[in-house]
Amino acid sequence: MSRSVETVFGLHAVRALLTRHPERILRLRLASERDDPRLRELVELAKRHGRPVERVPAQGLKRQLGEAVHQGVVADIEALPAWTEDDLLSALTIAAQPLVLALDGVQDPHNLGACLRTADACGALAVMVPKDRSAQLNATVRKVAAGAAETTPVVAVTNLARSLGLLKSAGLWVVGADAEGAKPAQDVDMRGGTVLVLGAEGAGLRKLTRANCDYVVRLPQLGSVESLNVSVAAGMLLYEALRQRGTAPA
Amino acid sequence: MSRSVETVFGLHAVRALLTRHPERILRLRLASERDDPRLRELVELAKRHGRPVERVPAQGLKRQLGEAVHQGVVADIEALPAWTEDDLLSALTIAAQPLVLALDGVQDPHNLGACLRTADACGALAVMVPKDRSAQLNATVRKVAAGAAETTPVVAVTNLARSLGLLKSAGLWVVGADAEGAKPAQDVDMRGGTVLVLGAEGAGLRKLTRANCDYVVRLPQLGSVESLNVSVAAGMLLYEALRQRGTAPA
Repeated sequence: MSRSVETVFGLHAVRALLTRHPERILRLRLASERDDPRLRELVELAKRHGRPVERVPAQGLKRQLGEAVHQGVVADIEALPAWTEDDLLSALTIAAQPLVLALDGVQDPHNLGACLRTADACGALAVMVPKDRSAQLNATVRKVAAGAAETTPVVAVTNLARSLGLLKSAGLWVVGADAEGAKPAQDVDMRGGTVLVLGAEGAGLRKLTRANCDYVVRLPQLGSVESLNVSVAAGMLLYEALRQRGTAPA
Repeated sequence: MSRSVETVFGLHAVRALLTRHPERILRLRLASERDDPRLRELVELAKRHGRPVERVPAQGLKRQLGEAVHQGVVADIEALPAWTEDDLLSALTIAAQPLVLALDGVQDPHNLGACLRTADACGALAVMVPKDRSAQLNATVRKVAAGAAETTPVVAVTNLARSLGLLKSAGLWVVGADAEGAKPAQDVDMRGGTVLVLGAEGAGLRKLTRANCDYVVRLPQLGSVESLNVSVAAGMLLYEALRQRGTAPA
């Protein structure tokens, strides 16, 4: 398998990578024009983890990244490979209060990318999608995810219902959301390990997926619009889980 | 001013319009092939409000709407005109627990459309944007809003900071959100009339906007991604307000 290199940029994103996954950074590129405490902190972190740092002209970063707000900070990293179901199950054994986002048939790559970005911001362990009838991790998804695809793994599974069953056996609660949900999200305890399951736009959860949920909750739908965008719905559910855990304020 | 006609479709969207704004419906078009209790309920509602109903071949709806999921239910409605600041202030005098979403410099029409859709689903009274340095209501925004632009008005104001001041005088609390916020959203009481203020992607709240906030709260930012998409952040804040009010389960 050839190694794929991805680019992550911006102070926050690169600092998060240096802190959480320094081993994946191939090199750091910093605009030679910039020098301030936040950049020096990154250089310090890179040194501590033995990652190479290069000073490059800001003009070159602009050529590569266009109008993206890179703040003079770019990391070239090894692309995060997709996880297998086994990777996810092993990760669960060491994660505290893991949060997994499962998407049942989200077909639009923009929506998958947006969900990945939201999952990452909320500290989700992984995003699970079925191999069929779903968008898969591709260049569009990576771009919309704005760097999140490099830190939050996507797990494509053959049979979503079966995988939800495995996660249940691993001790996670499975909480689905759709318009027919029996309770509001705040009435379900999501402080333990939890899989949050969202259906495709419009279609909602499939019957078998629903049957594998411990709870199905409903989200706001006060207006005239058919349903919330799936990434917004994911944001609300993840927010609720973090609120209950007292970790919402990162 | 010429009257502009917009099309809203789908059972839920059309029922919401018939319930909330029947006067704006010019005519209802229902696929002649369909007949079920939910359609009959719409016909009943339309009759009660004196709105004309036509039966048309599903083929014709498909020609007009393409692959959109219209469920055989289409309403032609008067486009919602933009509100002035005065319209908003009058609406506030009769609204119970009004929720207003203010966007400080969101330039991407897709993001404005997505915020409008989210605001509508959460029952917000209006979305406020500054006239300068912000996306305005246009065809792209309407399309992304998926019908929400026809029910949730956009108010373009000359001076956002001044308008926030007026809303404060009208008794609303002004709650901003950005990465530097002092408290998590759940620690601020949003049960009374509230304006939720979000900044542009990356840039956050402008100084003057921030100065006009009663509270600035922070949202989850646990991951490596620079910031949440503004419509996801709006969804989290609106969700939190509805949760506190006990109206989240629509």
